[in-house]
Amino acid sequence: MRKHIFNAGPSVLPVEVLKEASEAVVDLNKSGQSILEISHRGNTFESVVAEAKSLVKELLGLGDDYEVLFLQGGASLQFCMMPMNFLKETETAAYVDTGTWSSKAIKEAKLFGKVEVIGSSKAQNFNHIPKGFAIPKTAKYFHITTNNTIYGTQFQIYPDSPVLYFADMSSDFLSKEIPASKFDLIYAGAQKNVGPAGVTLVILKKELLKKIDKTLPSMLDYRVFAENDSLYNTPCVFGIYVCLLTLRWLKRKGGLKAIGKINDEKAARLYAMFDKHPLYVGHSEKEDRSKMNVVFMLSKPDLENAFVEACSKAGIVGIKGHRSVGGFRASIYNALPMESVEVLCGVMEEFAFRYDGAAVGSGSRQ
Amino acid sequence: MRKHIFNAGPSVLPVEVLKEASEAVVDLNKSGQSILEISHRGNTFESVVAEAKSLVKELLGLGDDYEVLFLQGGASLQFCMMPMNFLKETETAAYVDTGTWSSKAIKEAKLFGKVEVIGSSKAQNFNHIPKGFAIPKTAKYFHITTNNTIYGTQFQIYPDSPVLYFADMSSDFLSKEIPASKFDLIYAGAQKNVGPAGVTLVILKKELLKKIDKTLPSMLDYRVFAENDSLYNTPCVFGIYVCLLTLRWLKRKGGLKAIGKINDEKAARLYAMFDKHPLYVGHSEKEDRSKMNVVFMLSKPDLENAFVEACSKAGIVGIKGHRSVGGFRASIYNALPMESVEVLCGVMEEFAFRYDGAAVGSGSRQ
Repeated sequence: MRKHIFNAGPSVLPVEVLKEASEAVVDLNKSGQSILEISHRGNTFESVVAEAKSLVKELLGLGDDYEVLFLQGGASLQFCMMPMNFLKETETAAYVDTGTWSSKAIKEAKLFGKVEVIGSSKAQNFNHIPKGFAIPKTAKYFHITTNNTIYGTQFQIYPDSPVLYFADMSSDFLSKEIPASKFDLIYAGAQKNVGPAGVTLVILKKELLKKIDKTLPSMLDYRVFAENDSLYNTPCVFGIYVCLLTLRWLKRKGGLKAIGKINDEKAARLYAMFDKHPLYVGHSEKEDRSKMNVVFMLSKPDLENAFVEACSKAGIVGIKGHRSVGGFRASIYNALPMESVEVLCGVMEEFAFRYDGAAVGSGSRQ
Repeated sequence: MRKHIFNAGPSVLPVEVLKEASEAVVDLNKSGQSILEISHRGNTFESVVAEAKSLVKELLGLGDDYEVLFLQGGASLQFCMMPMNFLKETETAAYVDTGTWSSKAIKEAKLFGKVEVIGSSKAQNFNHIPKGFAIPKTAKYFHITTNNTIYGTQFQIYPDSPVLYFADMSSDFLSKEIPASKFDLIYAGAQKNVGPAGVTLVILKKELLKKIDKTLPSMLDYRVFAENDSLYNTPCVFGIYVCLLTLRWLKRKGGLKAIGKINDEKAARLYAMFDKHPLYVGHSEKEDRSKMNVVFMLSKPDLENAFVEACSKAGIVGIKGHRSVGGFRASIYNALPMESVEVLCGVMEEFAFRYDGAAVGSGSRQ
């Protein structure tokens, strides 16, 4: 009955998390109240926030010099909140443009200061991660989008930054080991690897808070969230609770090293299809391929509907590509089991044999 | 096992809504996907948003000249978003200060323009709704908080406004029939009468959108939410879904007229305790008493702990008052059954007999 969920986000969550969340919606730990009904000011929920914060730091290997905040509004609100807090009219921020989401981040930052786009792959429809760019030492901060959901590209190595280092990690957050302490501020919508839509995580160096010297609306001021332990006003209680359940699951799985290995295997299994069958043509350049979103076209585009149908018959959902690229996108976040990848690869094999007639392709398509 | 939930918000939701939401967390309508896993771009969720919008308008008796938006960030984000969209530096907005939440709304508005507080009950610790104030015809807009959760006061009659009329209805939204078309913009956090924390409803006249002439960050611009049917970015999918379930429940109950009658009865039953037992002293002046939050002290404050204990033994939670007022607060939102009110009244009766010895009090305490 359960589908193979390749949605781009919101997307698949661990079955055991769903089961526990479902029970909590009727009765939270036999408290006689639903997780939807408890006060955000009580001990129960304060413990949820504290444990979730602590697990995020533990998983990322970060110490007490970092603060973890739970906000609302998605990464899209961070696109403006970040420059609103840190960029002044006369100052310049350096951005790398790797697709739709970084383009939106750039657009919002321009409302608050100057933006220098120091690298862009726009001319190639964002099929690679720009390299060899120079980060100006005079920039207020440097910003990257670590994984590009729509185009299926991902920074495999994070360039060094001589200035404050900010990153939108929405779509590969907590999917592998990273040198987290390299960053001054990381933000991520929860709805890919961490939980349901409605929660945004912001992880920032505590000393960064001291650099904010503007008068800001309370709900757009990182200091207010930090001073109030993310409880200045009522947060997305259920969302944060499900994040906690997912973080616990991730720790039980062995943390970032273990999940990174599994994610590598899932991605390798799928990308191998491109080498084997010329019918499948990847969008991203090989070295920048995302381990989270596998984006591909059919070399015979008139077979697209038949491919969607074959997937659908196998219980696969969410495989259609974003309109900016077309084709297909298999999002293979943390909670997607290898079994689902095997089912998709099975469909791809069978489909290639049936419609393309090619048993073995002519090597990589990139 | 289930508690009597008098929380101030998040608070009690209908049992049948919790049950349906719980099932959807494991499997949404036998789709093989959780409500937490579906795309916000698919037909399923677009129907959820469309039906929820339509039900809000139907319940409030509003026509196509109004837009219903689903946002994040709570009423607290609206405190700044509203003036950010509608108030300029040289313009003045008229606010009535009826407690903590309107004070916060005033504070945020001052960041964007001038604020004239035309009525305030601050000197009396917000124990009544100011009356007889004049709304300047030159004001850009007039703002009230219709129900004051912390102080247990509520506008029983909405004064006429010669200018744009904005209202924070967070804690009495959809709790009774109101002349909704009197207002140009209504906003409300969902977590009192409509759903779980994490969803904010904004209902505004479509022509109001044309009055916005500033360049604003996308996520803080009402026009962006209206143009994208609240789906500019990923919204709080689960929260909106539970709002829909609660709105359907409210319609089945008979809508605002029917729920208003039940809420009147629940409030009357509780306030009658004040007249009967001098031990219970209401905070609000009688004519301004809230039908949503019944706030009271004990005339013998040293009995407070014993009262909390008596409530706790009867399965009552969330009865402790807010620190700004002290004493007790019984929040009796739409989903709180009369049965729970009866249990609380039973405790109050028994407690008064045991500790106060007074069978009948000396009339109203106000």
